[in-house]
This record gives sequence, structure tokens and C-alpha cells, in this order.
Amino acid sequence: MLKLALADCQSRVDAVLAAHIDALPQTAPALKAAMRHGALIGGKRIRPFLVYAVGELLGVDKAKLDRLAAAVECVHAYSLIHDDLPAMDDDNLRRGKPTVHIAFDEATAILAGDALQTLAFEIISESDAGLAPKAQVAMIAALARASGYLGMCGGQALDLAGEGKSISLDELTRLHNLKTGALIRAAVELALIAADASDADTAALRAYADAIGLAFQVQDDILDITATTEEIGKPQGSDLDANKSTYPKLLGLDGARQTADALVADALSALAKMPYNSQLLADFARYIVARRV
Amino acid sequence: MLKLALADCQSRVDAVLAAHIDALPQTAPALKAAMRHGALIGGKRIRPFLVYAVGELLGVDKAKLDRLAAAVECVHAYSLIHDDLPAMDDDNLRRGKPTVHIAFDEATAILAGDALQTLAFEIISESDAGLAPKAQVAMIAALARASGYLGMCGGQALDLAGEGKSISLDELTRLHNLKTGALIRAAVELALIAADASDADTAALRAYADAIGLAFQVQDDILDITATTEEIGKPQGSDLDANKSTYPKLLGLDGARQTADALVADALSALAKMPYNSQLLADFARYIVARRV
Repeated sequence: MLKLALADCQSRVDAVLAAHIDALPQTAPALKAAMRHGALIGGKRIRPFLVYAVGELLGVDKAKLDRLAAAVECVHAYSLIHDDLPAMDDDNLRRGKPTVHIAFDEATAILAGDALQTLAFEIISESDAGLAPKAQVAMIAALARASGYLGMCGGQALDLAGEGKSISLDELTRLHNLKTGALIRAAVELALIAADASDADTAALRAYADAIGLAFQVQDDILDITATTEEIGKPQGSDLDANKSTYPKLLGLDGARQTADALVADALSALAKMPYNSQLLADFARYIVARRV
Repeated sequence: MLKLALADCQSRVDAVLAAHIDALPQTAPALKAAMRHGALIGGKRIRPFLVYAVGELLGVDKAKLDRLAAAVECVHAYSLIHDDLPAMDDDNLRRGKPTVHIAFDEATAILAGDALQTLAFEIISESDAGLAPKAQVAMIAALARASGYLGMCGGQALDLAGEGKSISLDELTRLHNLKTGALIRAAVELALIAADASDADTAALRAYADAIGLAFQVQDDILDITATTEEIGKPQGSDLDANKSTYPKLLGLDGARQTADALVADALSALAKMPYNSQLLADFARYIVARRV
């Protein structure tokens, strides 16, 4: 059921993203193609999945969630394009495909990232969004906070600053809460706002988001050591090469696995506080730490 | 009077920008400092000026305009940081000061630009903005359209694609309408939305914005040839060096000057259609083509 839901979400959000990008005029063809390449390079689409799964759990119509899923993925896609740049992580491959600055050029990759960030805010603020203006503003505020200095950009800055240094477990956790956790939380938050969720549901699903956000990163660190280059679609051991602090490095491989399992338990316990059938979200939490890619 | 108003606007928007950036926690000090450097590197602040001047003309309280002026300048500042990067225009100096990637490093400059773009949307979407949610959404939509593929980013892509090629006057105009015109128009648009302006005022002030937006770029091209490096704070003749199409190159220096003057006349004629004392905006239009920096 989870596998089906994930595949459905991937094709659905890809179609929504493609529709938004294809609707742009052919003013700057290379930029448009680069945005498309970066946005549709594939991936697990875990942020869109969370938008759909949380939204539907709370009774929101799927069609109303489409633009929220697309917006949060635009931010994620832009961040990957910029992270892959030579001045940042200098990665040539992403999910087995050439990164945007390789498929196009560096200037186009910078602009494509910039324009995808803007597109996220455009998509949510469109007047035909079928959302109440108050909800739209709250969503934009949540997405902006999660993306900027207070979230993802701040986390990426900490990540760059931490290269070649050894940082504490607390610092590593804070870094990841910003770098990846904030946007995962934002995906859940957008669905909560769309659903006009109760305080109790909001608290439970935020706790769920926090736990799986961190679990996701712990598992990413584990995969960097244990998965093959083919499986993860980028050079195996690239974190080790970059001399980055990771959970396995600080806790050992077993310790990192225990941490991931404990976070999944936290996520499941948060779900159990709600009076809904949250099987799909529970399966997703388990998948986060069981995945090989 | 214009000189005073410009100086007042500069110090006011600088204070607002500084307040927003200084209020960020010290999570990532280098990133925060780079954002500050990029946002407060100086400049004419013509977009904030337009927000204030148009807003006040239509009776909007100055305090209500502060965050709009700051938001539009955040977008402008982010675009300059990214335009200056080695992969783009590769400029070491901006207004006589080291550009962000020189003062910090390339990765930090990319992130600072990214985070300043986000900050723009954050500033407008804050719940304490004192704006109606419907107006906030309209402002975010206008700013996003002007900043992304349909505006500034699209124009920058055309600019890069045009380097080393000769493009027609129509193409050059379209490029500049996107690259600089769109954000200048957005500054006016934000003020129009804040004022809940009438259709007639909206049409007149949009025509004004279109005319001065293009006039600004024509004068920039003229200054690239006629001003000294000291005056413009970057190497004189840098457009010529980059083999870019410019108005003087396509029209001759006199032809470019005539174009600029005709655009100012268009701007003044648009202002004359309104029943207000628009002396300040008229002076500003004249200043746009008379300025030496």
C-alpha cells in the first residue's frame, strides 16, 4: 500500500510540476529546460508524499493539495541544484543523472535554482489556488521560514562551516533539523493549514514530522556508508570524502541505527495520539529508515 | 526635494533591512553577515523609493510601506549577489565595495542570495504586517511573478544568452523589461495594492513604471560608456568588455539619449493623467536619466 501510494504521489507531483513549468512561455528556453531538468530529475518525493498523506488523513481534497506538494518540491529541487554547484558540494551526478550545472552550465543552474524558489511562492500565491487568502499567507510564511536563514539555508551554511571540523551530536542534530528537517516539517505544516487542523492534530503531526525528518537524515548518513554508488545514484562515501560529521561517525553504525529506530518509535507514538487510521504514515516512518536509496 | 526624499528613503529602508536581518538569530554567523553585506552595500534604492513615493502619493501610511520597500530590495539585493558570481558577470566590485563572494566566499554568496530571496517573501507574509491577507497574497504573487522566470530571472537568462551575440532593439528592450523593468514595476505594484488604488491610478502608475524602468536601463548603458570607474563603482566599459548589446551600441550615444528622454516624457505624461501633485515622481523620472551614477 505504501509502495503504491509513493508511486502515485511521484507521478502525480511530477505531472503538477511539469504542468506549472510547461505553462511558462518560451522566453528563455535554456532556463526553462534547466528548471524542468532540476524539478523532474526524479527522487522519492517524500515532501509531496507528506503533503498528500497528511492532507488526506485530515480530509482535504487531493486536488487542493497538488499545488502545495508542487511548491514544497520546488524549494527542495532548487536547494539540490544549488547544493550540487562546484562552489558547494560539487556533485556531477544526482539520482544517476547529470546535475543541472553539468547538463547545462553553472550560470543557468544558479538561475534555475533561483527561479524554482520563486515558482514555489508563485504557485501558492496564485489567485486561482482555491485557498482562503488567510491560509495562503500562513502557508507562504511557513514555507519561507522553513526555506530561508531560519531553516534550510541556515542549515546548509552550518553544513559548509562544519566540513573538515568535528562537531558534537547536538550540533549535528541542529544542523539537520535546519537543513532537511525544516522543509519536511513545512510539508506537514502546509497540509495542516489546508486542513485547518485542530490543535491536538497539529501537535501530534508536528511531532511526527520532527521525528521522521531527523530519522531521514540519520538513514541518509547510514546509506552513505552502506549503500553502493549504484543504489544511491551518487558516489558512495561522498560524506566521508568531504570529511563531514555524520551520525555513524559520531555514534558508530549500530548507534546510528538505534537512533533511527528510536526516532521511528517517536513518530509512531505521535501518530497513536490521533483518532485516525494513520497506517500509511506509520508505514512511511518505517520506510524512512528501511530504505536502501 | 528629490535629493532629500531619496536620502530619506535610503536611510529608512536601510534601517528596516538591518532590523529584519539583525533580528535573525546567530545560528549561521557568516551567512547572516553575508546577507547583511549584500543587502546594505548601498545603492540608490530606487525600488524602495518607488514604493514610498507611490504609496504616499495615494495616501498610504509610510510605516505600512516599510516592509514592502524592504521586500522588493531584498529581491534586488539577492539578484545582484548572484549576478556578481564568477559563473555570471564575475564582478569583484559593487558600489566600490567587494562583492559578497569576494568579501566572503562563493558558497556563502550563493546561500546569502537564496536566503535574501526567501526573506522577501517572509517579510511580506508575516502575520503582524498590518495588511489584509488578500492584499498580502496579491503582493506576494506580484513580487514572485516579477522576480522569477516571467521576470527578472528570465531577463538575466536572456542577458547571458545574448553575450557575444548581436541582438535586435526589440530583443534588447524585452530583455530589459524582464531583467530590470519587472522588479521596478513590482515596486509600484506593491504600493498600488497597499493603496487599493483605482483602476485609473493603477493604469497611469503602471505606465509610469514601465517608462522609467526602461529609461533606467538606457541610462545605465549610457553611463557604462560615459562615466568613470570611480563614479559607477565598477569597471568602466564592462558591458563593452563583455561584448553585450546595449542601447548606445544599437542606437549610437545620441540615439540612446533621445530614447531615454522620450521615455521620461512618457512617464511625465502618465503622471499628468492623475489628479494629484506628483512632482516628486516627475522629478524622479528626470533624475533617472540625468544621474551620473
